[in-house]
Amino acid sequence: MVQDFSNRLDCLGTETAFLVSKDANEFASKGNKIYPFHLGDINITTPKNIIEKSEFAMKDGKTGYVPSEGIPALRDALAEKLGIERNINLNRDNIIVQPGGKPVILKFIHSLMDPGDEVLYPNPGYPIYESQIEYNGGIAKPYSYNLSNSGFSIDKKQLENSISNKTKILVYNNYQNPMGSESSEEEMNWIADFVIQNNLWVLSDEAYFNIQYSGLPKSIISIPGMFERTVILYTFSKTYAMTGWRLGAAVGPKSLMKYFSKLSVNDESCTNHFIQYGGIEALLGDQSGANYILTKLKKRRDLLSKKLKQINGVNLYVPNSTFYLFPEITDIYDKMGAKSYEDFRRKTLLNTGVAFCTREHFGRVDDNESKKFIRFAYSGINCDQIDEGIDKLSKFWSQL
Amino acid sequence: MVQDFSNRLDCLGTETAFLVSKDANEFASKGNKIYPFHLGDINITTPKNIIEKSEFAMKDGKTGYVPSEGIPALRDALAEKLGIERNINLNRDNIIVQPGGKPVILKFIHSLMDPGDEVLYPNPGYPIYESQIEYNGGIAKPYSYNLSNSGFSIDKKQLENSISNKTKILVYNNYQNPMGSESSEEEMNWIADFVIQNNLWVLSDEAYFNIQYSGLPKSIISIPGMFERTVILYTFSKTYAMTGWRLGAAVGPKSLMKYFSKLSVNDESCTNHFIQYGGIEALLGDQSGANYILTKLKKRRDLLSKKLKQINGVNLYVPNSTFYLFPEITDIYDKMGAKSYEDFRRKTLLNTGVAFCTREHFGRVDDNESKKFIRFAYSGINCDQIDEGIDKLSKFWSQL
Repeated sequence: MVQDFSNRLDCLGTETAFLVSKDANEFASKGNKIYPFHLGDINITTPKNIIEKSEFAMKDGKTGYVPSEGIPALRDALAEKLGIERNINLNRDNIIVQPGGKPVILKFIHSLMDPGDEVLYPNPGYPIYESQIEYNGGIAKPYSYNLSNSGFSIDKKQLENSISNKTKILVYNNYQNPMGSESSEEEMNWIADFVIQNNLWVLSDEAYFNIQYSGLPKSIISIPGMFERTVILYTFSKTYAMTGWRLGAAVGPKSLMKYFSKLSVNDESCTNHFIQYGGIEALLGDQSGANYILTKLKKRRDLLSKKLKQINGVNLYVPNSTFYLFPEITDIYDKMGAKSYEDFRRKTLLNTGVAFCTREHFGRVDDNESKKFIRFAYSGINCDQIDEGIDKLSKFWSQL
Repeated sequence: MVQDFSNRLDCLGTETAFLVSKDANEFASKGNKIYPFHLGDINITTPKNIIEKSEFAMKDGKTGYVPSEGIPALRDALAEKLGIERNINLNRDNIIVQPGGKPVILKFIHSLMDPGDEVLYPNPGYPIYESQIEYNGGIAKPYSYNLSNSGFSIDKKQLENSISNKTKILVYNNYQNPMGSESSEEEMNWIADFVIQNNLWVLSDEAYFNIQYSGLPKSIISIPGMFERTVILYTFSKTYAMTGWRLGAAVGPKSLMKYFSKLSVNDESCTNHFIQYGGIEALLGDQSGANYILTKLKKRRDLLSKKLKQINGVNLYVPNSTFYLFPEITDIYDKMGAKSYEDFRRKTLLNTGVAFCTREHFGRVDDNESKKFIRFAYSGINCDQIDEGIDKLSKFWSQL
């Protein structure tokens, strides 16, 4: 017998949403029709100009190693564009190109959290925060949200009560997955004040910063005192329908970015060379592709939210950002007599073909949570299928 | 003041070879000519058929997420090709596609080494082994090589003396960077016997497996009892001149590969989608591109080794594999009165433009090491420049 695997693997979490895909695929393989609201992927192709520039670079011999921090021209383009959008001064030294936005989470946790440190993170939230905190020996302290008529708001009391002398980090995901929520001006200022008072580092996950259906987004990094304690997770995935390209960046103080670069040297070496030219085109070139994606997503949001609101027992706030809806469905859940979120999700899938994730896929459910939520992603499904799928869903739920 | 960075960063190593690049670039910026023998990159373009298939996939909408373990067709292609080359049965479940070969090192260390565990690793060797072992709380126990007329051979006595009840892993890099050394049949069998007797896991870094100028390579995984304790680091980088594409794979027992996949979910999510189609073409398509690369490298090796051997004080064994030469230059070092490896390297660079790495870039130098070695890479320099550069080098060294 070979020796055991390492003990640390016992603390490794994952994204459990793949189980939904597995169920959906199994159901489809029996000849059933699936309405995929479970995937955070985008069924729109990457804008042509981005593809063309990447193709040119690939054929032009941009196929060798590049610096682990990325090619200078892409770092400059990111500094320029992200700086303008966030109303701050950035330069190349603040930018480390990464193979996607997700690798920023590991590097952030590694460079700032020691074992035993406490990290405040959103729950419901992107499940990798919790996983990386606990895998690396930290104490994951969730904070939650309250739903009112004006949307989801962060539970400030819970944050205040969670602070200890071991708290080191707050993970902030404005334009939030899975809720689609965004901070009011007041809330963002409160969070900034809170982290400055308590001397915390902030991971500002801005994956959906540019998925805004009206108005302009704002980054917490623009508030005085925040730049020196914040790392932005930036990704090309959503804005430019580039999920499978794996291109993103970390943005933060130069002294910290040096370590991000060193961690890159130790792990992925560098990000694919020629797609970095596609990244420059995405940022500085023609934006009609990104606008097209946004227009298409908005139509889907409007249709899906209109139809969901017509269903009895659905309590939905329609967010201005992300491509997710997070309806509360407690009454329907109870009417079904569902034994669990998984039971509710599976019964609905098997009766309608509608696949979605539940609140349970986004962090541990607290015993005190009385209301039930599910998540619909509309990034991977067209309007005609939204129409058809939600009709079936509505019919099934109303007959319970 | 924001709180400090994490303590673990103090244990993070790096590749120090970039300092050589920095010096070389600085020297070049003053109008001097550089002969780049320091880079492990390849100045040959990726074969056209691989580029074409990737381009087609990119335009065909292969731009969304894929499973973290890679697309099934590439995993199947890897299982088929690597299985044949290594004389073992592999299937999809043994393969996790990765963004390069390097990320396999971190995942291997994470899934098998607990803090305090001891890891045997080659020194001189690829510096990331040492860095990842120590960064993750392991005890790095180096093993070295002896140079004889038949090449470099592993110091078996040292390995035997290094074993303790805490030893868990041996890193084995046959077709070795920086030495270019390869195990004899006898040595490979001895290593297999050694790890089986001591119940160790093996990371078999096979980055240069296909860079063979005559004969056929052999993998330690083909020896009975090895498959269940071995993970192969595979990369497309060298064989197909794809260093900047970031495409590789881990190959190992299914039960372990599940954790590699879970680690991928937590970090890079997945490897770029469309380049995986290029990977399939690389493995199963026309091999004339790979053959061209090999032929070109062999010419460079023959020229460089012939010219180096003509220099007084150079003691060179010419390996059959990799694109590195690792000459012993103790006499020249002493004649120069060099104060350190860095002194020797810099003086040579400033007087000749010839840039190379030294033994010091490949792990900590032991106090007992009396002989001095440097490393020439010939992957990034053409024959005419090899000719010119080594002439200058020879002249400078002979005048010391």
